[in-house]
Amino acid sequence: MSDEFVVKSARHKELLELLDAFGTFGETGKGGIARLAASPADGQVRDFLCDWFRERDFRVLVDEVGNIFGVLDLMKGPAEKHFFCGSHLDSQPEAGKFDGALGVACACIAALCLQESVKTDGLEPSFRYFVVCCWTGEEGARFQPSLVGSSVYSGAKTAAETLAIKDSDETSLAVALDTIGYRGKDTIPKADQYLELHIEQGTELERNKTPIALVTNCWGAKKIRLEFKGVPDHTGPTPMQDRRNALLAASHGIVEVEAIANKAKATLYSSVGRIEVQPNSPNTIAEHVQMWIEFRSPDEAALEAAEKDLLKALDGIERETGCTAHISSTETRSVVTFDKTAIATIEVGFKAASIPFLHLKTIAGHDAVRLQEVCPSTLLFAPSKDGITHSPEEFTADEDVCAGFDAMLDALSNLIIGPVSEQYSGRQSQ
Amino acid sequence: MSDEFVVKSARHKELLELLDAFGTFGETGKGGIARLAASPADGQVRDFLCDWFRERDFRVLVDEVGNIFGVLDLMKGPAEKHFFCGSHLDSQPEAGKFDGALGVACACIAALCLQESVKTDGLEPSFRYFVVCCWTGEEGARFQPSLVGSSVYSGAKTAAETLAIKDSDETSLAVALDTIGYRGKDTIPKADQYLELHIEQGTELERNKTPIALVTNCWGAKKIRLEFKGVPDHTGPTPMQDRRNALLAASHGIVEVEAIANKAKATLYSSVGRIEVQPNSPNTIAEHVQMWIEFRSPDEAALEAAEKDLLKALDGIERETGCTAHISSTETRSVVTFDKTAIATIEVGFKAASIPFLHLKTIAGHDAVRLQEVCPSTLLFAPSKDGITHSPEEFTADEDVCAGFDAMLDALSNLIIGPVSEQYSGRQSQ
Repeated sequence: MSDEFVVKSARHKELLELLDAFGTFGETGKGGIARLAASPADGQVRDFLCDWFRERDFRVLVDEVGNIFGVLDLMKGPAEKHFFCGSHLDSQPEAGKFDGALGVACACIAALCLQESVKTDGLEPSFRYFVVCCWTGEEGARFQPSLVGSSVYSGAKTAAETLAIKDSDETSLAVALDTIGYRGKDTIPKADQYLELHIEQGTELERNKTPIALVTNCWGAKKIRLEFKGVPDHTGPTPMQDRRNALLAASHGIVEVEAIANKAKATLYSSVGRIEVQPNSPNTIAEHVQMWIEFRSPDEAALEAAEKDLLKALDGIERETGCTAHISSTETRSVVTFDKTAIATIEVGFKAASIPFLHLKTIAGHDAVRLQEVCPSTLLFAPSKDGITHSPEEFTADEDVCAGFDAMLDALSNLIIGPVSEQYSGRQSQ
Repeated sequence: MSDEFVVKSARHKELLELLDAFGTFGETGKGGIARLAASPADGQVRDFLCDWFRERDFRVLVDEVGNIFGVLDLMKGPAEKHFFCGSHLDSQPEAGKFDGALGVACACIAALCLQESVKTDGLEPSFRYFVVCCWTGEEGARFQPSLVGSSVYSGAKTAAETLAIKDSDETSLAVALDTIGYRGKDTIPKADQYLELHIEQGTELERNKTPIALVTNCWGAKKIRLEFKGVPDHTGPTPMQDRRNALLAASHGIVEVEAIANKAKATLYSSVGRIEVQPNSPNTIAEHVQMWIEFRSPDEAALEAAEKDLLKALDGIERETGCTAHISSTETRSVVTFDKTAIATIEVGFKAASIPFLHLKTIAGHDAVRLQEVCPSTLLFAPSKDGITHSPEEFTADEDVCAGFDAMLDALSNLIIGPVSEQYSGRQSQ
């Protein structure tokens, strides 16, 4: 792969321009973006995407939680069969330009390639419609937990409960979507199959100099919201032994969440990334602290054990600090295995087209995890430099973007059109 | 003391009405107030106070950091001698209606009593002017550290550095004062003596059924701003051993600050009441955490030892978490002894008027601590129920307010006019 490679393909040029264009919305000036779900910047990138769809004769549908669908009619194939493909355009508060955006941009350009392929080469697809998806609030940065939009589409959550989720300023998702004009009313077709390309957020592809990974499964997770209640009082005169300091209790909690992962017998990751303290004044003992805990593991029994360990630790923290602990919500996500038939089909294509690939697992959740609940779903990974993500440092080079796209298009062609598409895919990437 | 006691005195009625009126600005609907320094609610109560002054022929002065002075000319006494008396009207984020407001209200009504006394009884005061003070940002809830306005008046801080202090939204004190119209330009006279009445924020007066305390000294304090820097990354795929989690480091820090107080050989209180986390998203490892630490002790050596213990603990936290720790500011407040001559004078008056009193220390800082740096200063405490403060639960009953006021007026009369005022003070409280 070389720079000339980029120049030679008009589709690659179009892809890189589209990805760049997405990256201009919510730019922070530090090399990254801040595009929280349903924020003004998210609204602007959505407007841009919808314009892009309409200019190319995609039908645009928006559901009640703001998921956007760009439906392209391939003009052939079984009526009412829909292939879904996409990712998300929302981001973490200080994020890079590839997480989510890569998958949406590649799906957009792949749609055009497939349409052209069906038209020009007279091939018969197995799906009449190719649907590019942009899922709402995948990140869970503004509205928790993550996978907001795809959880409603998959039926794991209701629209009503999801629209009622509030951000840290007490703004509901419903109000935020109304503000940017993306609380839709469209009925969305049923997905018959799904594919998503995402950056790896790890270093396996980079270390192995491999352009693409087939993700075989996703770790399970427990997302726990924990509250500590203390008693507000003056940090000066209140005798130490009389204090009920919710921030002290929370600090013990955070240390404990780390220790539970480190002591676990199975592989277990844990984190607390967000904390809200009331009243959060230097001179007042904290009355109330909320924290967002994650446990992740490839072993569901380890997640159950972690929750039990946490409950046990909370008893000790309550005794030691005089505060009360309360788990206000727990969401358990099972270990997910992605569709094996699709993986096998894609592998055959990759081998025929001499595309090197790895099998990987994902620890982070992606919208494909939710889609696997309703249809055969595939998650592909493209390389990301040093594995850094959720940071302005996140980076995937142009040639890795294009190689990832080529592999994704090969996979799509094999799933949608069949082996004949090898010729087609080959033409795109030369 | 009974309810009838309140009805009988017009001045008590006026005092309770004024205190009630202050409590209407920034009401939260939960029984308390939110009146952060230089907030709109603080602006409104300041406007109310200035109107109150002007309606009663006080000259109103505002200095460059927003301290308000209501100057009442007693029309007799040595020219250019000024007796200052007051407290503050700003509050914690979720506060009661007595902390600060009691001292300002009592100073206002005491001014009228003293004026009347000098006029009616033909007495000769030792001060020509009685100056009611309302100090800016005593609480340190919005702008840190506390005692913002009185620190500039005393010369401990410059106006320029103080105006540049920013709140958590990056608004400077200068801008906040401009917004409410309280960045003044007046030259303020030199205080020759100061007295402040404040709620105790402890339970000694309540337990001893005593209306007033003479505060003999104030504990020293160290206010330390500590930062931890980590590396932002995804809370999912990032291997546990590669994480540099600033919130985990901060949690160890908070636990350590508590342990340092508990292990100290001398009396030492400690707290962390405020923490700011970036980016504070459930799915991103915290990059940056700031925390506001307080150590308080009657023993200055214990404060120095606490700071050394903290530095030692930080080495361990850096090693354990891979984060870096940095102390961005330290403010040391010495142990303060209030003016002994004033205390002796007041005691003679209390005994002559049969006013029961205690000697207490204060752990919390008050504006009187700063004023003691420039003139003889006195701090009096009135009871506060169960010692609860910095909370909507903070409460002082009407009869305790009035008894505290009577004792304060007796003290002021003795300091300003002399022992003859016993008759006067007696008349007020019957």
